[in-house]
Amino acid sequence: MNNKSKKIKAAIVIIGNEILSGRTQEVNLSHLSIWLNKLGVSVDEVRIITDKENKIIDCVNELRKKFNYVFTTGGIGPTHDDITAESISKAFNLNYEIHQEAFNILEKYYKPGEFNKGRQKMAMMPSKAILIYNPTSGAPGFSVENVFCLPGVPSILQSMLSGINDKISGGKKLLTKTINLRTVESEIAISLKEVQENNEEVEIGSYPFFRAGKIGVVIVLRSEEESKINICNEQILKFVNFKKIELIKQD
Amino acid sequence: MNNKSKKIKAAIVIIGNEILSGRTQEVNLSHLSIWLNKLGVSVDEVRIITDKENKIIDCVNELRKKFNYVFTTGGIGPTHDDITAESISKAFNLNYEIHQEAFNILEKYYKPGEFNKGRQKMAMMPSKAILIYNPTSGAPGFSVENVFCLPGVPSILQSMLSGINDKISGGKKLLTKTINLRTVESEIAISLKEVQENNEEVEIGSYPFFRAGKIGVVIVLRSEEESKINICNEQILKFVNFKKIELIKQD
Repeated sequence: MNNKSKKIKAAIVIIGNEILSGRTQEVNLSHLSIWLNKLGVSVDEVRIITDKENKIIDCVNELRKKFNYVFTTGGIGPTHDDITAESISKAFNLNYEIHQEAFNILEKYYKPGEFNKGRQKMAMMPSKAILIYNPTSGAPGFSVENVFCLPGVPSILQSMLSGINDKISGGKKLLTKTINLRTVESEIAISLKEVQENNEEVEIGSYPFFRAGKIGVVIVLRSEEESKINICNEQILKFVNFKKIELIKQD
Repeated sequence: MNNKSKKIKAAIVIIGNEILSGRTQEVNLSHLSIWLNKLGVSVDEVRIITDKENKIIDCVNELRKKFNYVFTTGGIGPTHDDITAESISKAFNLNYEIHQEAFNILEKYYKPGEFNKGRQKMAMMPSKAILIYNPTSGAPGFSVENVFCLPGVPSILQSMLSGINDKISGGKKLLTKTINLRTVESEIAISLKEVQENNEEVEIGSYPFFRAGKIGVVIVLRSEEESKINICNEQILKFVNFKKIELIKQD
């Protein structure tokens, strides 16, 4: 790849009223994000939207132009509220039709006579869709251009990702180093800001935590260059030492 | 309120690279959504964005026009990566300046001599900001018009919500009924679609689950009218009965 030096960015669109209502805790984002990061792609935006056709169309059409990759989760099952495939067809101005390979996979997956009309809906996709195979439960996902449509059930989604590793062309992997300190953010804010100003190519995040009754701050350093992270790390440890702040751990 | 019959909608903007990177699991959405639903407000969209000023400005300016309320989480602490207050100031074309009441609260909160420059940053807000008091750790959040800015730390965010109950004017509360079935979605897809078509004012969601090694489907009915949910419920139980599907529980 000749884009190793360019940052490759993805957006994730989570389709699901059950997430928005607070009934179901979203868990796919962190899994997708960690998987993408290993491939050299960083997740730059996430949208969680309702199961409404125009919402899905507008959102996907906006994001697929802005990002290298878009991943959708949810809405590819057999029920009436599963409208991702039809919406993506409309977003791309493609026919929504039986995908013959998906039809064959599903027909083979079910016992004779069980591949009913409800199940056949799962073979309906945008024309030109490329299948994303599903080792867990038969029903495939699909991609159209840079948009990849995955199911919402976490175990099924996770089982499908390795099958599309080779379709994702990432840039340099973002490396991370974390420093856990027994302090509060306001103790280190000024010093940390100085380190950030001296190390513009390292992204420095500061996150307070309360764990087992104790407070602390985790500093996260992110860069594509290990040497730059190391320089930054040394400068932070210098003021940590000077301020006599307890270093809990580093990794 | 005379808008009891109108649906009141909110958007949530989660500001934080640590969520996008997959390092930290997002947990504020479900808490905020359940709290808002009790006040008659439904969360219709969520965006998770990076700690970038232009991202925050564009996102908030787009959503505050589309939704009755916008809630942001994260980025109001003392460190260099806490840029929510400054970004919101720019979004509204307001000065970013010391908020005297916030300054007084913070000065009182800290021991004499401890209210340092890093901590004083937490008193910097858009001019005209209205404080959201913080019973947990001193530092207040704030609102400007229909935009409410809350911290990212879940326990602190949760402690602040009851203080703004009276600032949220909701519509009718959305009621929910769930039906847990021992079946698969494709067994009930056609019948459920018919029930949805006969009950357009009830939102019917269908979600497969795997729990303790067993599969099932939870059907969620949502409407502002209990009577409409009940009619819908009866029609579903009728086909469930007819198909001899096991009803696990209802609530």
